Amino acid sequence: MFPKNVWYVACTPEEIDDKPLGRTVCNERIVFFRAEEGKVAAVEDFCPHRGAPLSLGFVRDGQLVCGYHGLEMNCEGKCSSMPGQRVRGFPANRTYPVVERHGFIWVWPGEADKADPELIPELHWAESPDWAYGGGLYHIQCDYRLMIDNLMDLTHETYIHASSIGQAEIEEAAPETVVNGDEVITRREMENITAPPFWQAALRGNNMAEDMPVDRWQVCRFTPPSHVLIEVGVAAAGKGGINAPAESRVASVVVDFITPETETSHWYFWGMARNFNPQDEALTERIKEGQGKIFAEDLEMLESQQKNLLAYPNRRLLSLNIDGGGVRARRIIDRLLTEEAAPSPGAAAAG
Amino acid sequence: MFPKNVWYVACTPEEIDDKPLGRTVCNERIVFFRAEEGKVAAVEDFCPHRGAPLSLGFVRDGQLVCGYHGLEMNCEGKCSSMPGQRVRGFPANRTYPVVERHGFIWVWPGEADKADPELIPELHWAESPDWAYGGGLYHIQCDYRLMIDNLMDLTHETYIHASSIGQAEIEEAAPETVVNGDEVITRREMENITAPPFWQAALRGNNMAEDMPVDRWQVCRFTPPSHVLIEVGVAAAGKGGINAPAESRVASVVVDFITPETETSHWYFWGMARNFNPQDEALTERIKEGQGKIFAEDLEMLESQQKNLLAYPNRRLLSLNIDGGGVRARRIIDRLLTEEAAPSPGAAAAG
Amino acid sequence: MFPKNVWYVACTPEEIDDKPLGRTVCNERIVFFRAEEGKVAAVEDFCPHRGAPLSLGFVRDGQLVCGYHGLEMNCEGKCSSMPGQRVRGFPANRTYPVVERHGFIWVWPGEADKADPELIPELHWAESPDWAYGGGLYHIQCDYRLMIDNLMDLTHETYIHASSIGQAEIEEAAPETVVNGDEVITRREMENITAPPFWQAALRGNNMAEDMPVDRWQVCRFTPPSHVLIEVGVAAAGKGGINAPAESRVASVVVDFITPETETSHWYFWGMARNFNPQDEALTERIKEGQGKIFAEDLEMLESQQKNLLAYPNRRLLSLNIDGGGVRARRIIDRLLTEEAAPSPGAAAAG
Repeated sequence: MFPKNVWYVACTPEEIDDKPLGRTVCNERIVFFRAEEGKVAAVEDFCPHRGAPLSLGFVRDGQLVCGYHGLEMNCEGKCSSMPGQRVRGFPANRTYPVVERHGFIWVWPGEADKADPELIPELHWAESPDWAYGGGLYHIQCDYRLMIDNLMDLTHETYIHASSIGQAEIEEAAPETVVNGDEVITRREMENITAPPFWQAALRGNNMAEDMPVDRWQVCRFTPPSHVLIEVGVAAAGKGGINAPAESRVASVVVDFITPETETSHWYFWGMARNFNPQDEALTERIKEGQGKIFAEDLEMLESQQKNLLAYPNRRLLSLNIDGGGVRARRIIDRLLTEEAAPSPGAAAAG
Repeated sequence: MFPKNVWYVACTPEEIDDKPLGRTVCNERIVFFRAEEGKVAAVEDFCPHRGAPLSLGFVRDGQLVCGYHGLEMNCEGKCSSMPGQRVRGFPANRTYPVVERHGFIWVWPGEADKADPELIPELHWAESPDWAYGGGLYHIQCDYRLMIDNLMDLTHETYIHASSIGQAEIEEAAPETVVNGDEVITRREMENITAPPFWQAALRGNNMAEDMPVDRWQVCRFTPPSHVLIEVGVAAAGKGGINAPAESRVASVVVDFITPETETSHWYFWGMARNFNPQDEALTERIKEGQGKIFAEDLEMLESQQKNLLAYPNRRLLSLNIDGGGVRARRIIDRLLTEEAAPSPGAAAAG
Repeated sequence: MFPKNVWYVACTPEEIDDKPLGRTVCNERIVFFRAEEGKVAAVEDFCPHRGAPLSLGFVRDGQLVCGYHGLEMNCEGKCSSMPGQRVRGFPANRTYPVVERHGFIWVWPGEADKADPELIPELHWAESPDWAYGGGLYHIQCDYRLMIDNLMDLTHETYIHASSIGQAEIEEAAPETVVNGDEVITRREMENITAPPFWQAALRGNNMAEDMPVDRWQVCRFTPPSHVLIEVGVAAAGKGGINAPAESRVASVVVDFITPETETSHWYFWGMARNFNPQDEALTERIKEGQGKIFAEDLEMLESQQKNLLAYPNRRLLSLNIDGGGVRARRIIDRLLTEEAAPSPGAAAAG
C-alpha cells in the first residue's frame, strides 16, 4: 500500500556512474542509467527480446545495451538498434519520469503524465556551500510505514540507541504534534539536561564543553509520500534552544528518504546534513560512519516487528500520544491512496 | 497436529537466566522470562503498542520491558507502565501456564483453565543427589512425531549410529511392545554380546572389562504428549541384565522431550541421566558431548524424511513389528487430538 | 513442461561409483545406484518403510540398503530383505528405465513400456579412440528451454563471453536455420577473421599461427528432447572452413545435455569432444577448466532471465532471426508434449 503518483528517491548518482542499476521501486522493476549527455533515464528492466534484465548490460554512447544479445535501448524505452536485426518497430518499454536533483535520483513510479518535477521537495542544505551532507543506504525487510513510525517517534532512541543518542529524558518529555496541510511536525524539547554521547562528541568537535547543561531538541517533519527530515541539536542551556545563536549550539538535519520496494520491504536512504565545518570531509565521513552504526541498530527490531505483524494479521495496534506523528503521517498516506484509487475527474466527466 | 492441552518442555532455566527468550511452541509465539521473585512467566511475544517481539527487550524489577519504546508488561500480561504514557487500561496479552520443575520450564500452550501442574511427569532422577543429568537442545525441521518414531524404534542405531551405539545384534533381537494406559513400552534385550564403542567406554569408566560379554537392554517409554525416556545399559553376561546388581552393570536413562514448534518443526531436548559417579562433572560434560554428536547424526535423516513425505503426500507408509512402539504412541496422540476437538462435556450439557 | 517419454542424461558413471545418487529428473525423485554385476538401476527415492530417501543409504552386494532401518531394495524396486522383518510382500517401488551408454547414465522418466534404448542418440566421439571428452555439470535455476535458446543462438558469446570466444563478427554473420525431421540445425560461418582468445590458444596448441586469418564456424544441432551438439572450429582462411583438411584446422564438438529437474530448474551436462591430441589428458583437463569458466558466465544471466520472466508472466517475447534455432526447437518440444498428452492409439481403439 504505497502511493505511486509521487516522487521517491531511487538511488544516488554514484550508483549509476559506472553501470546501469536495477532496482525495484513500488513493485516496478526498473533499470536506471545515464543516457545521452549524462541525462538519467529509467525504463522497465526487461529486454523485449528474451526477457533478460537490462541492468545486467552496459551503457554505450548513451544507449543501454542488453548484456545477453546486444539489443540497444534508448532513454525513451525504444529499441534503437541491434546488430544484424531490425528492431526499430519493436514495442517500446515503459519509461518512468526521473529527475536528478539535490544529490539524488528521483523516480515517479505511477502515471507519467502526472509527474511534475516541481513536486520534488526543496532541500536547501543540498544546494548551499554552507552545508555538508553524508549518508548511506539500507535495504530493510519491512513495510516502509514502519520506518516512518520509527522516525516520527524518537522515544525508541532511549531503548534501541541507548549508547549513543538515547537518554531517559527523551521519554520524559512529551512530544507535540501539529499538522500543516500535508506536513506533519512532531516536536520534542528537553531542557537543562546532560548531552548523550553522540552530542557530547559534537560539542567537543565544536570546541564547546561536553559536560555543560544543554537544551536538546528534535523536530521531525514528515512530508508525503515518505520523507522524514529531523532537525536535531543541543545548545548551552538557557540560550534559546533551537533558536540559540550559532556559537552556543550544534545542530544538524537527519535526512530520511524511504522508498517502498514491495509491500514488506523498502530502501532506506539515511544521512545527515550539517552547517558547521562543512568543508571538513573527514568529519563528514566520521559522522556518516557513526550514524550508519546507530541506524543499523533499528534493523533487527523493524524486521522482527514486520514478521510479528504478519504472524498476527488481525491484531490491532495501540496508538499512544507518542505515536501522534506516525498516526497523522499514515492518515495523509491513506488519503493519497484513496485519491489514487478514485476515478480521475476527467474520467468521471467522460462517463 | 499436536495436542495443546498438555505440558511441553519449553526451555531450560539457563535459557532465561539473563534475558527473555522468544520461542514458538505449537504455533504459539511466546516470550518466557523471570518475573517478580524469579518466578517464570510466559506471555504472547507481541507488544500491544506496536507489535514488536517483547523477547527483544529486557527484564527490569521483574517486569518485561519492550526493547522498542519501553512498554512494561507483568507476568499476567498486563501493561504495568510506560514512561509518559497511560497504559494500565490496555487489553492484556494472553498468558500461558508455565511451571519450573525437574530442571526444565514446562508450558501448557492450550486452554489455561485446564492446566494442572500435577500432570507434569515425575522425574525421580532430576531430584535425587544419586543422579546426574546433562543434555542439550536441537532445532529440527520435521514433524515431532517422526522423532517419536525414531526413538521408539532403535533399530536405526545399527545404521545411523554404527560407530558408537549401533550393532548388528540390535536388529536381530525382536522388540516387544506393551501398552499400559497412556504409556507405551518397547523393550529389547540382547544377550551375551560384545558391547559397542559407547558402552565399552562406559564400562572402562566404571572399572569394568570393556571386552567381556554383556547383556544389553533398551526399554523405551513413551508418555503423552511426546516424552520418550529410555532405560539403557549393559551388564556382565548372565548377571540378570537390567536387574543385575549395581557392581555388574552400567546403566542410564536417555531423556527425550520433544516439543512441536510448527507442523513441520520441533525443539528436541535430549540428555542423559545416570546414577554412577553423579558428582563427576567432567564425566557429565564428556557424556553430553558424545551424546550430542550421536544425536546430531539423526538430523539429516529426519529432515530429509520430512521433505520426502511432503513430496509424496498420498503415499502410505508401512509399519513393521519394529514400528510397534511408534504406532501405538501415535494412536494415543490421535486419541488426545480427538478429545481436544470434541465439544467439552460442559458445553454439551449447556446445549 | 517437459516431455517425459524420452531419454535424458541423469548423471555420469562416477557419480554413482561409491554411493547411491539421489537426483530429481522431470519432478521425479529418483535414486540411481549400481545393482548386481554393476548394472545401473533407478528407483523412486523413497523407502516404503518410513519414507526416508534411499539415496542416504548404501549399496551392499548389489542391493540398495536404506540408511535408516536397513530395508534392502533390489534393482526392480522390490524389497528383498530387512533384518528381522518380512518385507517380500511389500508393494514395489516404481523403477525407471536406465541405460549406461556413451559415458553417461540415461534415464526415461515417463512410461516404462515405451522406453527403447535404440532411441538414445549415437555419439560417435564417445566410442572412438581418436576422440577425447571432458566435461562437467551445473545445476541451474531456470527452465531448461532457456538453456536450449542460449545454445541455439550463439550471438550471446559476443556479450557474455567477450573475453574468450566472443567477437563482433559473430553478430555480423547472419545464422541460417534448417529443420531435418526432428533435428534443428543453426549454422553460422565467419570468413577471414581474427580468431578470438580461446581459438588462438587452440591454434597454438596445434602448432599453427594464432594470428593468421581464419574461417570460423558454429553448427548447432538440436535433437529432442534437449540435446544440443555444436560443431565449432577455425581453419586457415580460404582452406574450406569446416571442410578444410585436418592440418589446416582445429575443431571440436561442444556437448550439451540439458535435463529438466523442475519447471524452473535443470541439470546442465556440458563438455567438449575433440579429435586432436586425444591421448593428452592434461590438455583435456585444461580445456575442461577453461570451458567450465566460460559456461559459468551464462549462469547469472539465465537465472536472472528466469526471475524476470516469472515477474512478467504475461509479457510476450520477441523472436528475431537469430532466434530461429530456438524457436524451431521449441516447436518440436511442443509437438512431443501434445503427443504425450493425447490418448494413445491403443487407448482410442479400446474405446
